[in-house]
Parts: sequence; C-alpha cells; structure tokens
Amino acid sequence: MKIMITGGGGFIGQKLARKLADIGQLNQREISRIALADIQQPDPVIASMPVDYIKADISNKSDVAALFSEEVDVVFHLAAVVSGEAETNFDLGRRVNLDGSINILDAAARQTATRGNMPVVIFASSVAVHGGEAPELISDGVELNPQTSYGTQKAMIELLLQDYSRKGFLNGRGLRLPTVTIRPGKANRAASSFMSSIFRDTLQSEHANCPVTRNFPVWHTAPRTVVENFIHAASIPAANFGYNRNLNLPGRTDTIGEMINQMTEVAGPEAEKRITWNRDPQIEKIVMGWRGSFRPEKALALGFAADHSFADSVRYFLEDDIA
Amino acid sequence: MKIMITGGGGFIGQKLARKLADIGQLNQREISRIALADIQQPDPVIASMPVDYIKADISNKSDVAALFSEEVDVVFHLAAVVSGEAETNFDLGRRVNLDGSINILDAAARQTATRGNMPVVIFASSVAVHGGEAPELISDGVELNPQTSYGTQKAMIELLLQDYSRKGFLNGRGLRLPTVTIRPGKANRAASSFMSSIFRDTLQSEHANCPVTRNFPVWHTAPRTVVENFIHAASIPAANFGYNRNLNLPGRTDTIGEMINQMTEVAGPEAEKRITWNRDPQIEKIVMGWRGSFRPEKALALGFAADHSFADSVRYFLEDDIA
Repeated sequence: MKIMITGGGGFIGQKLARKLADIGQLNQREISRIALADIQQPDPVIASMPVDYIKADISNKSDVAALFSEEVDVVFHLAAVVSGEAETNFDLGRRVNLDGSINILDAAARQTATRGNMPVVIFASSVAVHGGEAPELISDGVELNPQTSYGTQKAMIELLLQDYSRKGFLNGRGLRLPTVTIRPGKANRAASSFMSSIFRDTLQSEHANCPVTRNFPVWHTAPRTVVENFIHAASIPAANFGYNRNLNLPGRTDTIGEMINQMTEVAGPEAEKRITWNRDPQIEKIVMGWRGSFRPEKALALGFAADHSFADSVRYFLEDDIA
Repeated sequence: MKIMITGGGGFIGQKLARKLADIGQLNQREISRIALADIQQPDPVIASMPVDYIKADISNKSDVAALFSEEVDVVFHLAAVVSGEAETNFDLGRRVNLDGSINILDAAARQTATRGNMPVVIFASSVAVHGGEAPELISDGVELNPQTSYGTQKAMIELLLQDYSRKGFLNGRGLRLPTVTIRPGKANRAASSFMSSIFRDTLQSEHANCPVTRNFPVWHTAPRTVVENFIHAASIPAANFGYNRNLNLPGRTDTIGEMINQMTEVAGPEAEKRITWNRDPQIEKIVMGWRGSFRPEKALALGFAADHSFADSVRYFLEDDIA
C-alpha cells in the first residue's frame, strides 16, 4: 500500500513516517511506498521501502492533483498553518487550512470516483475547535465553538470529511489533537509553542518564556502517543466510528506548574530556573479560548492511547529527541 | 440603507422583500433601495423605494462582485440549493451552498476592508445541521452533526460566518430555520416539500402525497414568523449574541397527524381526504435524520418570535397566499 503524509516535513509527519517505515505494514498490508509532501522538500527518513520527498503547496490544485497522480491508499493530512500564524495572517491560514484541505479531500474523492480505490484519510484536527459557549469540561457531543480562525478552518474540514465519508467519497477519520508536547525542534508560531519550549529549550540549557501563569491547565499529549494514535486511526474499521468520524483524542490535563514539577522529577531542578515569566496578552487571549479538560469517551472506547503522566512525556523527549 | 436579498426570487425572499418595502425602515434607518438577486431574475415586488432585480449565480465570483459593486448595508443570504437536490446532485449543492456562500461572505468582507462599511449578514441556516450523534431533544450547544450534504454545507458556512464576525470582517447572524410550512407555490426538491404540499395543495383541491406516517414529528414555523425573525435578526445589537452568532430559531413540534387535525379545524374536512399515503424511502431517510424537538432558549431570550399553533399557520396561508 502507498501512504502519503502532507506536512511530511513537520515534526509529527517525520516521526509518523519513521514509525511507519519501522513497522513496515498497516492493517496487515505491506507498505510499499511512502510519500512525504510539504511546502519545503521534507527531510529524508531512513526506510527499507522507497520514500518520495515532494515539495507541494496544497492550496495549489495542480500540486494536489500531482500528489494523487499515483493511487494512494492512506493519506495522513497533517499540513497546516499553525494557530498563531493563522490568526495574524488570515489569508495564508484560510488558503492552506481551508482551501488547501478542501483540495486534498476533493482529490481523494476524485481518486475514488475515477479509480474505484477509496483512500483512508486521517485528518489532523485540533482541540482548538472547542471553546466559547461550551462547558468547561468538554465531553463528546458539545457544539464546536472555535475561537480562532485556525480552529474554524479545522472544524469546517471536519464537517466536509464527515460528509465525504458518509457519501462514500473517501474513508475519513478526524482526530482532534490535544496540545502536543514536548515538541522537538525550534519554536514556531503556534500559540501553544511555549508549552513545548519551556521544557524542550530549558532541558537543553536555553532560556524560554512562559506567557501564562503556573496554574494554567493544559490538555496535552506526547508526540509518541500522537503517532501511535494516527496509526491506530488508520486501523479501525469505519463501522466502529458510528455516525461521526471526528473525535477528541485522549490526553492529560496538567497545569503548567505540575508539568514543570514532573520535568524536575525526571531531569533535575536546573531546567526550571531557565524559565522566564513574562505574560503575553496576545498568546494569552488565544490559549485562554481553548479548553483544559476533556472527557474523550468515544476515543477511549475505540482503543486510542492515553498518556499516563507528563513525566513519561519528558522521558520520551529525552529518549526520542535528545539521545 | 441598501438591503440585498440573495434567493430574492424564492418564496421567503419575496415575502421578506414585500415586508421590508412595507415597513420602509430597519433599525431606525430608511430603506433607500432593495436588491433582489437570484439565479433567475426575481419577480417584481410593489415598493415605494427602488428595487433592483438581478440575475446572478452566487457560485460565480464575478457575479458576486457585481452584487457588491455598490455598498450594501444588510445582506439576507437565502440563496441555496435545497436539501433533497443537494443530496442527489452533490456538485450543484457544493457549488452553490458552500462555494457560493463563501463568495458572498468574502465579498462582504471585502466591502468592509475596502470601504469601511461592515455589512450585517443574515444567513439562512437550517435545523438540518442537527442529527446523528445528538440527543433527541436539541438544546442550544449540541454538536452539529448534519446527516446530509445540505446540512453540512450550512454548518460549514455558520462556522465561517462566526469567524468572520469575530474578526470584524462582517456582522453576521445565522438562523437555523425549522421546516417552513405552509410554503406557497409549487412543490420543490426539498426533502421537506411534502410538509407543505399536503396542506397547500389539498387546501386548493389538489392531491398530495405524504411519504411518512401520521406520527412523524415536525419542527416547523410559519413563513410569516420566519420573515419577522429575519428582520428581528438584523435589528439585534451584535453584543447581545455573545460568543456565537448562530442559533436555533423558535418553532413548534407537532406530528403530521396533529397538523392535519388543525388544518381540518380551520378549513374543514375536505382537504385531508386528498392526502395519499405512499411511503418514500429516500425522503424518509433524509427527514428521519432531522430532529423534531428543540429547546431554542437563546433565540427566545433574544426576542425571536415563536409560533403558537399550526392552526395559525393555516390561517396565515389562507390570508397571505390564497386571498
């Protein structure tokens, strides 16, 4: 089977590609080829099967048509303009997160119509679809009330994914990712960027700023768990989802203060001393619009993995990204 | 002020135009001009102010740009491909209900950006956004789980309307209309078409088929109430809406059997005898995916009007559409 990952140059895309290359199969079918697509040519991944590295702008329909020029069996659609950037640069976010994602779904639907091979499409949605007029504790079934353009664009694509799945245009599954931390690499323009940098950078002897207070609650998951859950999503029979293909992934609620304490437990007291505490109203406005507590019953019933502690996430980071 | 009605040739568009022409003002500002746009040139409306009748395809961006060539203060966006047709002719529904509505919202946003005059945009959404994994009784705040492409397209535009309002691109208000009955005119390809024809046609000595059983519950509202609520929606200060600009309009729940009884009460027993009862699995599948019971607390708190009985709706029909 051929697998495509949009956003294949991003940190989750790269980790997912490495994991898929490692396990070599999905749903008892051998993975014969992996295509990594991104706005810049993705970094290479060590794999026993051929891997394509494709520079593509998903907001460009002919780029997307080229991505589907060969049949694709499973698409992990991760490409996105991140929350903070989609808020300040509305046109870019709209073009990539809305128009670009529609292009991907339309191309997948076109493959089904023209070749009779209906691809599985795993869509990386976000808990940023929640907020506003919604209870503090988000259970399955509350109205999506995104408070950002990023969250709006994700929620719109969820609806289209659901309808295309119902119509048999594609076999979709939408996963609302908690904040993924500890994210390796450099800070980015996601409003949640600090939720990684205050651990990642300080564990590597650098300073990092925390723009919110210690008691700010974060609904989070580790990169290793997310990769496991993406692969799990591709493995569940469509019928098990019931009506709705979009769901809140499991995660954990910890305050920033609790997370720092667990970092200290695993890696000693030095890192915390490198955190500065300058509040940032713009970041605060966005992240205060998110929710910190979820009850993802459907995802747990479907066998998605949950994180057991942020201490685990610190250990995963040290093992996977520093070692 | 200038008012534009898309779908201005449709029965609600025409009734709304007549009502606006009649009252002559909105929010204490004189209505200086009304533009009615539709895919076919709309029928004329008697009015003391100038009325433009425009043939326009909202899925065509240059048609939409032309609609906004002069500043518009209030847009009632009613144009849509109806539920049954959007389900059987997916491409048409997608092009009008999704792409076309995006064009309208983008053009309104462009007016705000280029002329500094932010239009009020009233969007006709639908209770078809509800269904699937949702409680039998729909209260405010349940997840939108449309079970049709029509409902999906409406829900996507609600989200965009909300985000554009939050960003200050336009001043949006989305109304989820109950089934509007008794609809005058001819049967159309809405799955709900029979919910008017079994009254409208039989009251006018014609036969009409009911494809569901007598105990089927309908969440409904009268055309007169809907027109009143559209105008009310344009009159409420934005701040009163709180976070979410989209809401379920008030309506009434009655079974088809109860509605027939009330028709008989108002207009005598002859009409009922002209109803045939042949079930239609395709219609049934769509309308069974809708909900029959709602608790529209937010709309009631905002002063939207509710219907008191279906008998009233029968009387309105006889007064407004037959007389």
